[in-house]
Amino acid sequence: MSLIVQKFGGTSVGSVERIQNVARRVVATREAGHQVAVIVSAMSGETNKLVALADAIGGESPSEREYDVLVSTGEQVTIALLSMAIHALGHGAVSFTGSQMGLRTDSAHSRARIEHIDADRIRKVLESGAVAVIAGFQGTDEQGNITTLGRGGSDTSAVAVACALAADACEIYTDVDGVYTTDPNMVSAARKLDRISYDEMLELASLGSKVLQIRSVKFAMQYDMPIHVRSSFHDGEGTWVVPEGDVMEQLVVSGVTYNRNEAKVRVADVKDTPGMASKIFGPLAEAGIVVDMIVQNVSNDGSTDMTFTVPKADHERALEIASGLSASLGDLRVEGDPEVAKVSIVGLGMKDHAGVAAKMFEVLATEGINIQMITTSEIKVSVVIDEKYTELAVRALHQAFVEDGAEEPREDS
Amino acid sequence: MSLIVQKFGGTSVGSVERIQNVARRVVATREAGHQVAVIVSAMSGETNKLVALADAIGGESPSEREYDVLVSTGEQVTIALLSMAIHALGHGAVSFTGSQMGLRTDSAHSRARIEHIDADRIRKVLESGAVAVIAGFQGTDEQGNITTLGRGGSDTSAVAVACALAADACEIYTDVDGVYTTDPNMVSAARKLDRISYDEMLELASLGSKVLQIRSVKFAMQYDMPIHVRSSFHDGEGTWVVPEGDVMEQLVVSGVTYNRNEAKVRVADVKDTPGMASKIFGPLAEAGIVVDMIVQNVSNDGSTDMTFTVPKADHERALEIASGLSASLGDLRVEGDPEVAKVSIVGLGMKDHAGVAAKMFEVLATEGINIQMITTSEIKVSVVIDEKYTELAVRALHQAFVEDGAEEPREDS
Repeated sequence: MSLIVQKFGGTSVGSVERIQNVARRVVATREAGHQVAVIVSAMSGETNKLVALADAIGGESPSEREYDVLVSTGEQVTIALLSMAIHALGHGAVSFTGSQMGLRTDSAHSRARIEHIDADRIRKVLESGAVAVIAGFQGTDEQGNITTLGRGGSDTSAVAVACALAADACEIYTDVDGVYTTDPNMVSAARKLDRISYDEMLELASLGSKVLQIRSVKFAMQYDMPIHVRSSFHDGEGTWVVPEGDVMEQLVVSGVTYNRNEAKVRVADVKDTPGMASKIFGPLAEAGIVVDMIVQNVSNDGSTDMTFTVPKADHERALEIASGLSASLGDLRVEGDPEVAKVSIVGLGMKDHAGVAAKMFEVLATEGINIQMITTSEIKVSVVIDEKYTELAVRALHQAFVEDGAEEPREDS
Repeated sequence: MSLIVQKFGGTSVGSVERIQNVARRVVATREAGHQVAVIVSAMSGETNKLVALADAIGGESPSEREYDVLVSTGEQVTIALLSMAIHALGHGAVSFTGSQMGLRTDSAHSRARIEHIDADRIRKVLESGAVAVIAGFQGTDEQGNITTLGRGGSDTSAVAVACALAADACEIYTDVDGVYTTDPNMVSAARKLDRISYDEMLELASLGSKVLQIRSVKFAMQYDMPIHVRSSFHDGEGTWVVPEGDVMEQLVVSGVTYNRNEAKVRVADVKDTPGMASKIFGPLAEAGIVVDMIVQNVSNDGSTDMTFTVPKADHERALEIASGLSASLGDLRVEGDPEVAKVSIVGLGMKDHAGVAAKMFEVLATEGINIQMITTSEIKVSVVIDEKYTELAVRALHQAFVEDGAEEPREDS
């Protein structure tokens, strides 16, 4: 007998019929002899309805505490309905709100961090033979205020509960089959990965793959909790996200990703003296602008230039802030380009294979694609290119590294 | 400075605009220098939507525990929105779910009884100058399970909170102006009462007046908490429900009420031996049928007959159960009549005035209305009549006792 945690998102519980489907799947797992704890999101659309009500009430900045009280009702509705649906199939089920399950967070409303889970009540329900049906996304702080975990919070709840229960696996049900080597909508040859390491999944998640939220992967990695990303619409195996040692077949590149939501800012004629970087990026951070890639050129005649990317929505503001720095930092040249995309290759195998980056640049050169910026990590290479070449670049890289992946990269770099 | 508890029902918070109206009223009370705790229901229609979801899920008998988890989200939405609306007017407000406010109940889901309120957290919020916005209708049991108080629970929550806080008054806002001497839709001369005693209000409530729930009046009576029933649509004074000693002008009859939702059952040829009543009413109680009036005739030739009323919806079942008793109790004659109504007069003054019942019978006789059953209490006389005479009876009694109320009743009974 195993202890399985299953998580179903808003689409999977978006109607009475879908909740009944989820109940059947949960019961099938239970009848196979496993203990089951289920984490659910709000029915799709419900959170938006609640937010619309709050917006209609108006006021300068709605209280985050009350916002959390409001939106946490969404999951509470789902846990009650799913419990009833499981009862209707002749099985026991007991629901838990964030407060009832003892999911303790800090007090950062709408983006709270999990501090502790008291899994005793859940464990008692599981040992009684019933299914524990748990509201994702929510908890309470030390004073008993209701908190929510922010975007992707239900994935994080699920993995955290799985870790607290020392579950055998955490299954994340979603509307895709698993994790793909690239976007199947863009590249028809994209193929599903059987296994992927936490590190690779983190890079893929942060690069724009929407399958799993970063925080949940970090949590799983910390506790070595295997995550099984799979479809809520059929029974086939999905992708296991596991410790590095459990990934048998290490691909040199396991994923090609892209992100069209970045814009480029270049600040030139920067005096090459200590402290300039913090004087440029400090004001951006204060304005709440998240800077992604940063490249600083080698000094040239006592001046240097910095190029960085920001979310497209923040591009204009970033340009204004950077231009405003001329007053204190001397005449800077500030240029922007919102028409860029970031394309990346990710793979554990890069650690052991030299020349992966060189091969990537060669593939792009062959297609006539100019590289504007480059950053690398141990298991990732990202380049910024003209946005219009995104699709071409992704297809060429997928062809070179995944479809023809048997080829060893050249050893010349 | 007073401490005022205000309760707004589902209609009063039925839309964003109405919630904003409630916020304005609350803030006006706050700005007049009072501390304010507000109890709210779910937005009208919301509870029905949630119940419809539960019904769609199906299953033999939906879990009452999960049902409470589901429907309690309705009030939780309202407290968050009302708090935001108060914030938007520049005032502080902190919301409380049943769990957060420490409203402890027994474990009888969907009809729980309040055992204790820990008012400390609410008091702290009030002392900080903020408004406490409290979910009515809900609490938690000793194990932390969410419970609901059943029909009219929000009135009961409000009065219980007022008592726990030792508030100066509990204001119940509703869609009528106050408590009337009879149904104003039926009798245009009906007039609003300025004050009424708990005892009278209890009789009126149990007789079908929908202004206040019985349990809330009982609670108020126990703690001498004055209730002010008033309109949520304008500022005028409503009706104060107060201890008997505080009712200045004691009317002989303060209210004429009617209830068309009763049906009559007569069981004749009952052997006049001890225990027969429990043999008849035991099986009805087991079937969950609430028997209202019971009249037993004087024994005649060793047999007697019992006549009683039940809710119209239970009439057929009550007849079947009574007929089925012939097997064990000997041949009974069972007759039913669903076309009846109960008409009652209520008034503290009856205690001191003889002849009120006789005058009532005379008024009905003058109108040619036959009386089928009679029951009385210290401050009430009820009769069962043919349903088609309901309106005629109510108008005649209101005319005789309220409009011409200055007249003393005859002293002949």
